[in-house]
Amino acid sequence: MEAVRLHAYHERPRVEEIAVSAIQGPYDVLVDIGGSGLCRTDLHIVEGQWADRSHVRLPYTLGHENAGWVREVGSAVQHLHPGDTVILHPLATCGFCRACRAGDDVHCEASAFPGIDTDGGMAQVLRTSARSVVKLPQETNPADVAALADAGLTAYHAVKKAVPLLYPGTTCVVIGAGGLGHVGIQCLRALTATRIVVLDPNEEALVLTHEWGAHETVLVDGAHVQRVLEITGGKGAEVVLDFVGERGAERDSWAMTRRAGSHYVVGYGGTIEVPAIDVISTERNVIGNLVGSYNDLVELMALSAAGQVHLLTQAYPLDAVGDAMADLAAGRLRGRGILVPDRLS
Amino acid sequence: MEAVRLHAYHERPRVEEIAVSAIQGPYDVLVDIGGSGLCRTDLHIVEGQWADRSHVRLPYTLGHENAGWVREVGSAVQHLHPGDTVILHPLATCGFCRACRAGDDVHCEASAFPGIDTDGGMAQVLRTSARSVVKLPQETNPADVAALADAGLTAYHAVKKAVPLLYPGTTCVVIGAGGLGHVGIQCLRALTATRIVVLDPNEEALVLTHEWGAHETVLVDGAHVQRVLEITGGKGAEVVLDFVGERGAERDSWAMTRRAGSHYVVGYGGTIEVPAIDVISTERNVIGNLVGSYNDLVELMALSAAGQVHLLTQAYPLDAVGDAMADLAAGRLRGRGILVPDRLS
Amino acid sequence: MEAVRLHAYHERPRVEEIAVSAIQGPYDVLVDIGGSGLCRTDLHIVEGQWADRSHVRLPYTLGHENAGWVREVGSAVQHLHPGDTVILHPLATCGFCRACRAGDDVHCEASAFPGIDTDGGMAQVLRTSARSVVKLPQETNPADVAALADAGLTAYHAVKKAVPLLYPGTTCVVIGAGGLGHVGIQCLRALTATRIVVLDPNEEALVLTHEWGAHETVLVDGAHVQRVLEITGGKGAEVVLDFVGERGAERDSWAMTRRAGSHYVVGYGGTIEVPAIDVISTERNVIGNLVGSYNDLVELMALSAAGQVHLLTQAYPLDAVGDAMADLAAGRLRGRGILVPDRLS
Amino acid sequence: MEAVRLHAYHERPRVEEIAVSAIQGPYDVLVDIGGSGLCRTDLHIVEGQWADRSHVRLPYTLGHENAGWVREVGSAVQHLHPGDTVILHPLATCGFCRACRAGDDVHCEASAFPGIDTDGGMAQVLRTSARSVVKLPQETNPADVAALADAGLTAYHAVKKAVPLLYPGTTCVVIGAGGLGHVGIQCLRALTATRIVVLDPNEEALVLTHEWGAHETVLVDGAHVQRVLEITGGKGAEVVLDFVGERGAERDSWAMTRRAGSHYVVGYGGTIEVPAIDVISTERNVIGNLVGSYNDLVELMALSAAGQVHLLTQAYPLDAVGDAMADLAAGRLRGRGILVPDRLS
Repeated sequence: MEAVRLHAYHERPRVEEIAVSAIQGPYDVLVDIGGSGLCRTDLHIVEGQWADRSHVRLPYTLGHENAGWVREVGSAVQHLHPGDTVILHPLATCGFCRACRAGDDVHCEASAFPGIDTDGGMAQVLRTSARSVVKLPQETNPADVAALADAGLTAYHAVKKAVPLLYPGTTCVVIGAGGLGHVGIQCLRALTATRIVVLDPNEEALVLTHEWGAHETVLVDGAHVQRVLEITGGKGAEVVLDFVGERGAERDSWAMTRRAGSHYVVGYGGTIEVPAIDVISTERNVIGNLVGSYNDLVELMALSAAGQVHLLTQAYPLDAVGDAMADLAAGRLRGRGILVPDRLS
Repeated sequence: MEAVRLHAYHERPRVEEIAVSAIQGPYDVLVDIGGSGLCRTDLHIVEGQWADRSHVRLPYTLGHENAGWVREVGSAVQHLHPGDTVILHPLATCGFCRACRAGDDVHCEASAFPGIDTDGGMAQVLRTSARSVVKLPQETNPADVAALADAGLTAYHAVKKAVPLLYPGTTCVVIGAGGLGHVGIQCLRALTATRIVVLDPNEEALVLTHEWGAHETVLVDGAHVQRVLEITGGKGAEVVLDFVGERGAERDSWAMTRRAGSHYVVGYGGTIEVPAIDVISTERNVIGNLVGSYNDLVELMALSAAGQVHLLTQAYPLDAVGDAMADLAAGRLRGRGILVPDRLS
Repeated sequence: MEAVRLHAYHERPRVEEIAVSAIQGPYDVLVDIGGSGLCRTDLHIVEGQWADRSHVRLPYTLGHENAGWVREVGSAVQHLHPGDTVILHPLATCGFCRACRAGDDVHCEASAFPGIDTDGGMAQVLRTSARSVVKLPQETNPADVAALADAGLTAYHAVKKAVPLLYPGTTCVVIGAGGLGHVGIQCLRALTATRIVVLDPNEEALVLTHEWGAHETVLVDGAHVQRVLEITGGKGAEVVLDFVGERGAERDSWAMTRRAGSHYVVGYGGTIEVPAIDVISTERNVIGNLVGSYNDLVELMALSAAGQVHLLTQAYPLDAVGDAMADLAAGRLRGRGILVPDRLS
Repeated sequence: MEAVRLHAYHERPRVEEIAVSAIQGPYDVLVDIGGSGLCRTDLHIVEGQWADRSHVRLPYTLGHENAGWVREVGSAVQHLHPGDTVILHPLATCGFCRACRAGDDVHCEASAFPGIDTDGGMAQVLRTSARSVVKLPQETNPADVAALADAGLTAYHAVKKAVPLLYPGTTCVVIGAGGLGHVGIQCLRALTATRIVVLDPNEEALVLTHEWGAHETVLVDGAHVQRVLEITGGKGAEVVLDFVGERGAERDSWAMTRRAGSHYVVGYGGTIEVPAIDVISTERNVIGNLVGSYNDLVELMALSAAGQVHLLTQAYPLDAVGDAMADLAAGRLRGRGILVPDRLS
């Protein structure tokens, strides 16, 4: 089968022919990939930034946002069948640790992460665990939803955690009108009646957010923190969702969070730095956010099926991965790039 | 009446005779003070550290941890009567804003703080609002419980917020075996079955914590973070309550917090500084903590009445405030210093 | 001033001239009524059904859903001013008991209920407590929103309690497409992404619910429980909001509630009757629901101001109260009847 | 191996020799039983009361409260090893449905229930799923803890759900000082500072409860509801845990539940019957309770290992099951009867 393989860091991954993945354990599932999302993290992997974290052995196959159709199931799998349309939770979890059993499978004590530390989905076939597979309505086009598996799931998870704080009359600031913000805003509209204020340095990006559900937009121009304070009566927002996490956003977020409010860190790159006296005298919180759970993904797919969350995507054939990466790196990609392999017979 | 009055920053407060406080509004309450706790914050006030925050006009009366007996009530107060034994919530709140009406009165939009920004309780009589008054069993000795009104209430509030995270099998690290830690440990024992691990640089202080409920103690000696990781299987604690917040505790706390765990900041002085990638990749939280609500104080007094929370105190007559402050500054005070005025006839 | 006074049970209330209400206590507020909702409870009061519960002394003024403009405030009220447009929480609460201080003011230990156990708002002027007054945008027409003060608030409160159970992919059954259901459906749409299934015996009423947010409707025709089970895969709904509570709805609600689900009782008249073995073997709950809190009303008014909750109303002059009651009793009223007095100069 | 087999309803089960259980699937686990609790449900099974619910095919092996040592594991099980001391969650769950993945495995859509609908643990060896197995400290004696697997777990689960309602100053009424009440009281003491009031018709049973943690006891003598109202200021308790559920307890429980309080149904036999107007006018709840989750069992075993929950037990050899059942039926059993088979070599 064809796969996008990374042979060495700082070198372009190659599209090459390898042996078709095969079932190894009783709960394995093979999936014919219908779409695999391209993510900035893939660029970082190629640059070697993940080498010391993932300890993956090269060469291996990239791709951690995957959807497709079940091809074959292991001997113990009874609830999935060849041909089922599916999306894949990014982690393959153990199912036995406390976290897995508490609906918090992201903190599984023994998980694998296809595309990061084991072979991923930029290939005609992916091997994963039955625990990762979410069934979709049969007619869903995998390429349309693949990017919800990781980027979308992260945004949904942060929003869901914030929902109890966002009663009518509150304000939620969303920093970043890109891929995550795009999904986050739609989720906020679907799950709350909060006032949604979106910040971004790009005016065009801000304009688009109104149709996703933004009530107000603020250009990041140096006066933006002041502007947010003005439209919140000088108090700041109950919740700030920071999808950027660097270039000052991590600092501005805190400054825009009101007393007893919470700053949700989702993007990264910067450093959170706050005097303890500010933390305690205002009783504000800094909340960490990772990708969502399996059940979160099921919920997000329900929103998607109901038409409440849409993704902007741009499809590429699998062997155009080089073009897709170049487009992403150069900022030419509108929406999420999705690699679409030919379906193996 | 006698009162401890601050006339100028950097000068000792004086004990002097002033006019007895009088009822001014329909919900005012006068209290004959039976005990007023002395706090490190009082030393900081004298040193002028609060001048720019409180904007209080000098001279004024110190004392923000107060208990006693009702002396007189305003025309609209029906549920309190002269002679009632009472403890006072530190804030006099408005009762009308959302925070007040949500059980979150600490974030009241228009509160006064006797002893900080208006006349406090180091006096024979204090004027406060009916909203601050908690009735106690008639036989309670106010001097025994006064210090629960602020220091104790802060510890209780942080513990109560952490209770849902502390199911059986978890570990809670308490940093600091002093005044707040003392109450915090007892509250943890009363409200959870978590394993309590206490850290302090003072070996004697650690020994005492076992009778309050500590299961294990760790001397702060440079190897303490490593030691906590060892006794938590390399993972850290689900909750770290940092009652110190400076001299490295604010940094160690984070390092001892496990994946998906929470670092509760209570003490202050230092700066929280964490790369966003650490926050998100482990999904840890930094939780701010201020003093508890009025209902929290009622609950804490229920624990106290049931014998589940004890305070170490050392009483001084009101006119020995100078000695008490000197003892506190010099580290000679065992437990909380309590000023006890003569009861006005 | 003019007021609708009940002189004897089983007799029509009379519109008559009485002395204008006057301030009595420091936190009293007088309100020029702009709209007072007419409720089926008013008919029940006239029929004497509340005589033994309210113990009100006749004659008194009816009207427990009120909005208008502040006319005068007591000496201690600082946050309200003559001319403010306001809606009134139905209870005048004490502000000192635990419930009041926990945001649960509906369970106040010493509340009054204007229109039920003391003079209400079917009059030119109402005296209430500052604690009941919610400020509105100045331009709001009180007659448009008055019915949100009680009927709407009850629906909002039940929905808000159910929100954490209604994640995407769930089903919420709403029984009754009348006054409460009308608001309940709109609140569900504003606050959740659940699938909303509405039941009513009236086909016309069902048709209207689609524009409020209903996804599916089921005619109450004897086969309705079976129909709900069919569209929920034989399992029933995660939440059933029963706004009827009699004529079989109280029994059907339970039958339509799935394992681990909750039946919210809002309407009344019938009796809940369930074998304990059914309760425990399916772990279902029966949840009681009263009117919402003050903060709930503030939130509901935020939804209303944002255009997310609309009311169908029909206005009558105050002296047409007899016609309004007759129309309500005869089922001729479309939407809520609102009595609108002339504003006193 | 030896096993207690039911061949026909209304006939005594026989102890007989059958083939040793064998691994069938990759996640199967064989357990050498060290203790299997005898429950009143076993008597009901023999009487045929469960025939129509369990649809089990006779003959089969009884026993649904089991602990022992791992004997053999299926090919895919990596975290368990022969010789491990273990207790077994009563259900063998699928691990793939939403409930399993939300920490709510009791509502699994495809579970088996050994001892009820498939072969149980009154035998030398039991076959179960790796998902049911909780590892214990190696030195634990399975016979000492087996009864925590079902009866104890049910009590723990109900208490855990009630914890957020039981802040200091509240009252929790426990109905029934038997097997479940025994564990429930100890869990309340371990996890809350609530006042524990225990009701039972047996004075001797009540006396014992004080050492488990009861603060007050009330004899069920006809005046008991009145007595509970007296000691709660006429208001009733915030939480009533009804471990009996029949013979009037189901009615008394509701009468002892205060406004905004909750009646937890655990025992069964009677019928809950409450006018809807009582449910709504006081906003009380009826909460269903089934056995706890796998994680609940892990937590309960942590309490047990810490010495905070003790069980009264009486051991019988496996072939004395007839005596044990006769003792239980005749009320001669003190504590829980535990069947202890000889360990198979």
